[in-house]
Amino acid sequence: MTGRLSLPVDHACLIVDGPDQSGLVSAVTTLISRRGGNIVSLDQHSTDPSGGQFFQRVVFHRPDFAGARTQIEADLAETLSPFGVGWSLRDMSVPKRMAILASKDDHCLLDLLWRYRRGELPVTIPMVIANHTNTAEDVRSFDVPFFHVPSQKGPDKSQSEAEIVRLLKGNVDFIVLARYMQILSNDFLEKVGVPVINIHHSFLPAFIGANPYRKAKERGVKLVGATSHYVTEDLDEGPIIEQDVVRVTHADTAEDLRRRGADVERAVLSRAVRWHAEDRVVRHGNHTIVF
Amino acid sequence: MTGRLSLPVDHACLIVDGPDQSGLVSAVTTLISRRGGNIVSLDQHSTDPSGGQFFQRVVFHRPDFAGARTQIEADLAETLSPFGVGWSLRDMSVPKRMAILASKDDHCLLDLLWRYRRGELPVTIPMVIANHTNTAEDVRSFDVPFFHVPSQKGPDKSQSEAEIVRLLKGNVDFIVLARYMQILSNDFLEKVGVPVINIHHSFLPAFIGANPYRKAKERGVKLVGATSHYVTEDLDEGPIIEQDVVRVTHADTAEDLRRRGADVERAVLSRAVRWHAEDRVVRHGNHTIVF
Amino acid sequence: MTGRLSLPVDHACLIVDGPDQSGLVSAVTTLISRRGGNIVSLDQHSTDPSGGQFFQRVVFHRPDFAGARTQIEADLAETLSPFGVGWSLRDMSVPKRMAILASKDDHCLLDLLWRYRRGELPVTIPMVIANHTNTAEDVRSFDVPFFHVPSQKGPDKSQSEAEIVRLLKGNVDFIVLARYMQILSNDFLEKVGVPVINIHHSFLPAFIGANPYRKAKERGVKLVGATSHYVTEDLDEGPIIEQDVVRVTHADTAEDLRRRGADVERAVLSRAVRWHAEDRVVRHGNHTIVF
Amino acid sequence: MTGRLSLPVDHACLIVDGPDQSGLVSAVTTLISRRGGNIVSLDQHSTDPSGGQFFQRVVFHRPDFAGARTQIEADLAETLSPFGVGWSLRDMSVPKRMAILASKDDHCLLDLLWRYRRGELPVTIPMVIANHTNTAEDVRSFDVPFFHVPSQKGPDKSQSEAEIVRLLKGNVDFIVLARYMQILSNDFLEKVGVPVINIHHSFLPAFIGANPYRKAKERGVKLVGATSHYVTEDLDEGPIIEQDVVRVTHADTAEDLRRRGADVERAVLSRAVRWHAEDRVVRHGNHTIVF
Repeated sequence: MTGRLSLPVDHACLIVDGPDQSGLVSAVTTLISRRGGNIVSLDQHSTDPSGGQFFQRVVFHRPDFAGARTQIEADLAETLSPFGVGWSLRDMSVPKRMAILASKDDHCLLDLLWRYRRGELPVTIPMVIANHTNTAEDVRSFDVPFFHVPSQKGPDKSQSEAEIVRLLKGNVDFIVLARYMQILSNDFLEKVGVPVINIHHSFLPAFIGANPYRKAKERGVKLVGATSHYVTEDLDEGPIIEQDVVRVTHADTAEDLRRRGADVERAVLSRAVRWHAEDRVVRHGNHTIVF
Repeated sequence: MTGRLSLPVDHACLIVDGPDQSGLVSAVTTLISRRGGNIVSLDQHSTDPSGGQFFQRVVFHRPDFAGARTQIEADLAETLSPFGVGWSLRDMSVPKRMAILASKDDHCLLDLLWRYRRGELPVTIPMVIANHTNTAEDVRSFDVPFFHVPSQKGPDKSQSEAEIVRLLKGNVDFIVLARYMQILSNDFLEKVGVPVINIHHSFLPAFIGANPYRKAKERGVKLVGATSHYVTEDLDEGPIIEQDVVRVTHADTAEDLRRRGADVERAVLSRAVRWHAEDRVVRHGNHTIVF
Repeated sequence: MTGRLSLPVDHACLIVDGPDQSGLVSAVTTLISRRGGNIVSLDQHSTDPSGGQFFQRVVFHRPDFAGARTQIEADLAETLSPFGVGWSLRDMSVPKRMAILASKDDHCLLDLLWRYRRGELPVTIPMVIANHTNTAEDVRSFDVPFFHVPSQKGPDKSQSEAEIVRLLKGNVDFIVLARYMQILSNDFLEKVGVPVINIHHSFLPAFIGANPYRKAKERGVKLVGATSHYVTEDLDEGPIIEQDVVRVTHADTAEDLRRRGADVERAVLSRAVRWHAEDRVVRHGNHTIVF
Repeated sequence: MTGRLSLPVDHACLIVDGPDQSGLVSAVTTLISRRGGNIVSLDQHSTDPSGGQFFQRVVFHRPDFAGARTQIEADLAETLSPFGVGWSLRDMSVPKRMAILASKDDHCLLDLLWRYRRGELPVTIPMVIANHTNTAEDVRSFDVPFFHVPSQKGPDKSQSEAEIVRLLKGNVDFIVLARYMQILSNDFLEKVGVPVINIHHSFLPAFIGANPYRKAKERGVKLVGATSHYVTEDLDEGPIIEQDVVRVTHADTAEDLRRRGADVERAVLSRAVRWHAEDRVVRHGNHTIVF
């Protein structure tokens, strides 16, 4: 079912992240060159050339990368250790495993599944988990397993969260909340141990709490938007990956705002997911560098 | 200096605002037709056909409007009185008188002055009042009077506000705060008695307080925006007229964000001012209808 | 399968189109009021108040519209006849019947089907006709009939077009070409006798002929777009309904351009279809008024 | 008058351009590091890792760059010669000298002058040359010299072009046509010998010839745009630097389209000029890489 997806063979993505210092770029590029790699793309960002933080994403082609990987990693460890920077190396021919958590709303879920089938997302989708069953048939029509884990009433969600963790644990590289309308506990985030990406509506100004579209309508906003971000302990306050807006007018009802908001949500979430899957997003404190 | 401005001769703009009810549109259009007017444009909005609020903007052409005005107004009063709706009628060949209040920043101020000279805003500008002097020469090069009213230190601004009121009183139809960095008292708003339009930066999410661009940078927002609104007692919380955003990336510094924000601010403010001057904006509670 | 679609009961949409003249708006609104209708929305446009063309869209609520319809139509015929304008009246509780013609590409097709199921398009979809079979299963999963009509080789398409006409004739109110990669003959357009909406990629500047995305890539365009229009005898030259663009960079491959173009295409087409289905689009010569 | 402009001291920008090959990035970054430079930003693009064209922009900080420049250049020549690539090195503390050619329209001209004064463009402006005199006073109010060179009637423009060349020759690093409504001869382009940037309106589809806004209005376009590009022998066909669009509706007159078009033109041109002045634009065949 990922037949249309063509991942780049013998390509690797290296992420370097640490204190900026002279000679670091040169050390990395020289190493890759020495180990037979040809740099295909290189992006870097420095928060400040003097004493700032340095971020680099290098994609390189190396014939028989799988065979050379161990040696390249040993070389990276030795070369980068004196600089005191972190790094990670990923084989780009291996798709990331993405789980989707959903509730009743299907707009973000179906958009991801459709792009996945179309080969637009470099991922596999081992499972969709939902606390409702209405999307089961649709999900399975994409040859994706669907699991129903009902939400528990009340503040204690430990049991349903435990069941979700059992399903996810070891099986996924990241999780997407595609309008999953349950707040996840910090305990859950720790136990799954992989990045979690969320999408939520956004307004200028922000409207907190229930019925945001009705509040936005009452305030007469001229734009409605969406923000995709990594989930952290602070609900809806994690590092932003992508945002976008769409124009609305006084003639739009609260229902129109919801419909247009849904369009922005699925567009923003699909871009954020694609960029995360391509290792384009580097987290730093509470913000992101998107290469 | 308004030589390039061509205002529509013998055109009038009627705004009707009140409880929606059957026969209201017909009553208005029949009246205009009976009094020799030809409707050029008609926009209306109803919050709810059953028991909602109704808003209408009708522009009509009436040869010798000035001569017929008294009779049309008497007719409107008689016809609309049974409906219990409010209305206002304006001669569109008469530009509105717009005062601008500014501080040091010139981007919004100069954009308005330049559009005014170019004939893009149906207004006259009897004065610019600023609490700094750096823009005086620029303002006067547009043949617009410039008055310097320094801001008072401390919470009591009654004296400087009184001087501004003396300058404005009776001379202007509306006021634009073109990045005027002083909070106006409710007392001031009551005394000037005309609409006041403001512009401020906007983010998703909102960043309250000082240094918003630095905070937006730290949070890694991907959009910066601007909101233009009517000033009410609640600072920055009045009815929104127009909003827009521009994309930014991690590579933009806080200074870049400020520069790009300035571009959005002047674009948004100039649209809001144009629409207000053309009687396209109707206030209702805490939001606007923009026809 | 249209269970989520809630069409407005006892609402009618009146379109008036003809030479602008004094008293026309009043005549229409008075008539609606007299016949027990309450105007919900009214939009109008005049190309020129003096001797121009006038367009009006009025939506009104009339209890028991079905029962009153004959009398309202007789009244309209009598009232509007002296003005020499055309008009049409439609019961908005009756969805338009929309056929979709498709080829291999599924992005526009599935987006329409998905919005249809979600209740976002006020239509029924009696059939999808495609000249390939790859989308059959997807289409039928929406409970929509799928018919396969292979394209004929060579310039003569009369046989396959005749089969399509047989399927469509009398069964549909309009046709959407959702990336249908066959040129339809004028004979076909005449025989089906209903509006046909198309979508195609658009660039600044335009790139004519085959491989437009490759050409756009070579020319280094910074925007790719899409245009939805009514199909006329002049291929891709009919009245434009909607357009939009998305930013691209030198780093985007021709394949990336195609992917981003596909996103714009489905967004633009779905808006055009929605507006057409809501009677918001009035054709005039080679352009449209979109209310 | 460039008092607000702060150019980065001891920063250099290196552009490398040639056939892609293994070891090239490493060679460049090693050299900079060895010569005491710290890379501040590095962007690269390859049309194809195997046998494609490679483009690189490296900004680095080097204390006492002026003193070290000769040695760095010698090193670059020696190091890059075996790779067969071209390169250029520029001291970023030295602003580029930009001449502006204008006609009657002032919107692009004033926007550039205003951004220049505000410190947003890393340039000096030694002169504005116009074939009309209406902008002279405005230009000089920015302390920028204004020269009037009237256009010759008829096809032979050799005399006026010669006068313009005399003014520009040796005094400028690039030229901006800010709505300069004269076609420049190839002879002129050769003689001035510096890049020339133009701005023109753009539509989807394109409208060739006179009165494009009227034609766009007749065709009912929903977007109007602008394209900034380098001037080549083929009028309006040179490599595109930047493009953008704005939405319009049937209610916009041809005059409204012109006004909105003017806003897009000045925004697009100012971005293109900024990027060119910052050495972010690399030409390759008939397109650009914009870093």
